Amino acid sequence: MPGDKAQLLSAQALRTESSPINYLMALAFERPDAISLAAGFVDNESLPVTEMLACCREMLSDPAAARAALQYGTTQGHRPLRERLIRRLVDREGPAGEGMALDADHVVLTSGSQQMLFLICSVLLDPDDIVLLPRPAYFVFMDTLRVFGARTLGIDMDAEGLRADHLDRRLTELDRAGELGRVKFLYVCSYCDNPTGLTLSASRRRELMEVVARWRRRQQFYVLEDAAYRDLVYDAQTVIPSLKSLDRGNASVIYLETFSKPLAPGLKTGYGILPTSLVAPVLDQKGSHDFGSANLCQHLICRLLDSGRADEHLRQLHAAYRPKRDALLGALDREMSGLAGVSWTRPLGGLYVWLTLPTRINTDLDGPLFKRCLDKGVLYVPGSACYQGEPGFDAPRNHIRLSFGVPTPDENREGVRRLAQALREEMA
Amino acid sequence: MPGDKAQLLSAQALRTESSPINYLMALAFERPDAISLAAGFVDNESLPVTEMLACCREMLSDPAAARAALQYGTTQGHRPLRERLIRRLVDREGPAGEGMALDADHVVLTSGSQQMLFLICSVLLDPDDIVLLPRPAYFVFMDTLRVFGARTLGIDMDAEGLRADHLDRRLTELDRAGELGRVKFLYVCSYCDNPTGLTLSASRRRELMEVVARWRRRQQFYVLEDAAYRDLVYDAQTVIPSLKSLDRGNASVIYLETFSKPLAPGLKTGYGILPTSLVAPVLDQKGSHDFGSANLCQHLICRLLDSGRADEHLRQLHAAYRPKRDALLGALDREMSGLAGVSWTRPLGGLYVWLTLPTRINTDLDGPLFKRCLDKGVLYVPGSACYQGEPGFDAPRNHIRLSFGVPTPDENREGVRRLAQALREEMA
Repeated sequence: MPGDKAQLLSAQALRTESSPINYLMALAFERPDAISLAAGFVDNESLPVTEMLACCREMLSDPAAARAALQYGTTQGHRPLRERLIRRLVDREGPAGEGMALDADHVVLTSGSQQMLFLICSVLLDPDDIVLLPRPAYFVFMDTLRVFGARTLGIDMDAEGLRADHLDRRLTELDRAGELGRVKFLYVCSYCDNPTGLTLSASRRRELMEVVARWRRRQQFYVLEDAAYRDLVYDAQTVIPSLKSLDRGNASVIYLETFSKPLAPGLKTGYGILPTSLVAPVLDQKGSHDFGSANLCQHLICRLLDSGRADEHLRQLHAAYRPKRDALLGALDREMSGLAGVSWTRPLGGLYVWLTLPTRINTDLDGPLFKRCLDKGVLYVPGSACYQGEPGFDAPRNHIRLSFGVPTPDENREGVRRLAQALREEMA
Repeated sequence: MPGDKAQLLSAQALRTESSPINYLMALAFERPDAISLAAGFVDNESLPVTEMLACCREMLSDPAAARAALQYGTTQGHRPLRERLIRRLVDREGPAGEGMALDADHVVLTSGSQQMLFLICSVLLDPDDIVLLPRPAYFVFMDTLRVFGARTLGIDMDAEGLRADHLDRRLTELDRAGELGRVKFLYVCSYCDNPTGLTLSASRRRELMEVVARWRRRQQFYVLEDAAYRDLVYDAQTVIPSLKSLDRGNASVIYLETFSKPLAPGLKTGYGILPTSLVAPVLDQKGSHDFGSANLCQHLICRLLDSGRADEHLRQLHAAYRPKRDALLGALDREMSGLAGVSWTRPLGGLYVWLTLPTRINTDLDGPLFKRCLDKGVLYVPGSACYQGEPGFDAPRNHIRLSFGVPTPDENREGVRRLAQALREEMA
């Protein structure tokens, strides 16, 4: 057969690669004895089985409701659910929610929040366009950006999250280089960040949006606020309003959430609340992807929310995850407090803790620490997976992302014990 | 705000437009009194409500099965379902199914077959690549091709479906023009075609695949076989093997089906059976779209098939659609047999009949016939929506696509009566 494979594939297909994380997932299957602090999966035991059965029974026993769920939906998604999502957003913002210029027409339901990330990229990005990305950042999204041939520039983080001063400096540099016009958006994971576990502080949110507003007077670009873990904040003493709540004219912030974490990944339903200017382009694009995500799942989620079962489930979920996080953090305190150059984040919720080791320790998949850990039976995600190559920036190799959501509290403790043992051997 | 909207949008977004069919759908909502012979929706009354309730009950009452359905699935989709789909394909091929070189690894489950159409385009098409398309063709897919900036060239049809001699001539012309290398695939809707209702005859299938095989020795390209209506063939006296069954090495035919028509659109689940060379590129691309479609829906479909409920439902569906089609065809016989230059197809199943009027009649949305029909309360899809602009080809304006799936048999008869009345006035 003449003509090799690459010849027939599109430029986009040739830019698309399997993630190295696939290797880690394969390892987890091969080594069921190992404790995985790697996978960002959700806890299997706490999936809402009884709530879902009750909703399916109610819905499918009512022929009109059943047929509505089994028929075609619209590209934008089930309107009653979109209306509820706006009310729910406003409620969670506290006083900041008053006067937000949003309604159901700004919501687009998607196949998980990943589809919305993809749609935003496809609507905004041509090859060589620039995306500003936290350092470190959500690695799956970095793969998506690669599909579009985007250039990524990193913005540093500190304990309060993404640094506003560094964002300002980056934009100044781009302006001087005549490249400001290529900046399409800044990506931020604003609650219990993947991978760092950090939640942007309230004051940092304001600072960031001030920098954004100032530069947007010169050049339009968007903030892509990934709030995937907002419903998994289980320790906040006060309401933490979204970046979206600071976008009073609904012009600059694309807001994303998903039901995969707070409800069930099997529903594969997420959504975006979009600036007015992006609603039509995203819907046109989604129309050609699939003309609407699974209507049945949207009707089920609407019923879970309407009946109060989703909120009750969320309380149970918090009660399940909190002791896991506390077990992991407690074990880190016990096992690693004495180690020089070792530190970690203390997340308000979510699924992740970011561990920093002395700079001489290499945490990569092909490095000595990972091998020691594999021997002892514990898996983690190397921090370098969360950095993208960029001129003038050497991605650090001394970080680790730990996920505590799937293992039991005891397994979390045992996993940290094994990791600490490997680390002490490596540091000796 | 400086920088207008278009400036920020990607080239792909700027190529993406709302379909003119949206106008028709809006009309159908505005005029609930009108009989719609336009929408290709499925019959609301025959949705599998009780079957779905039974499957949900069984699945969600078993905690292990429930959790498996509510968790993340894989990008490729639920393996037991993929295995069943291969067995089911082979069974339906009759003797031609023996020795087909296919297994579950060649199946990719998607968010309806539309997502597979989109993925195939994104994996194969760069702007100005060529797609060979029946004349007329499925209009939603023509919109998708426009997103990718593909050039489309039409292949004529006759009563047996797509013409193999015209395909051969087209490829010869492209070869002479030095453009053979830009041809990425030929699209064919092989059973109860949308929009014509025609099913490719068995001998035409062989002729087409002979032409394809001959040219593929020179230049690799694919056949995209859209078998969306295969399960809705309700009148075939003999098995009609797929084009896929003639692709013995699993090298040339991309085969698509959907559960939207035979089961329920709300499940938004379709699938492709892919040539070996395309599996990895499609999975990589799908990974960045959504890393897998709704797992819950896939588990439900698997149970519907395993339990025999899906096949039982299909028998009911055939029993519901057959009298609708017969009512429409009977009314056409009664109302239009005497009209010179008027003819129509007699489909073996599916949802569509293709009506040809005298060439002087313009069926377009802004033409006089459509207006008369609107006044009388009947809607149809103008045939010109199913043709794409192409140098040297004037799209005919004297066709109509009629859909009989949603209206009752009586409404189908009444719809044709109104249409015939409008037509007689127009011809007078």
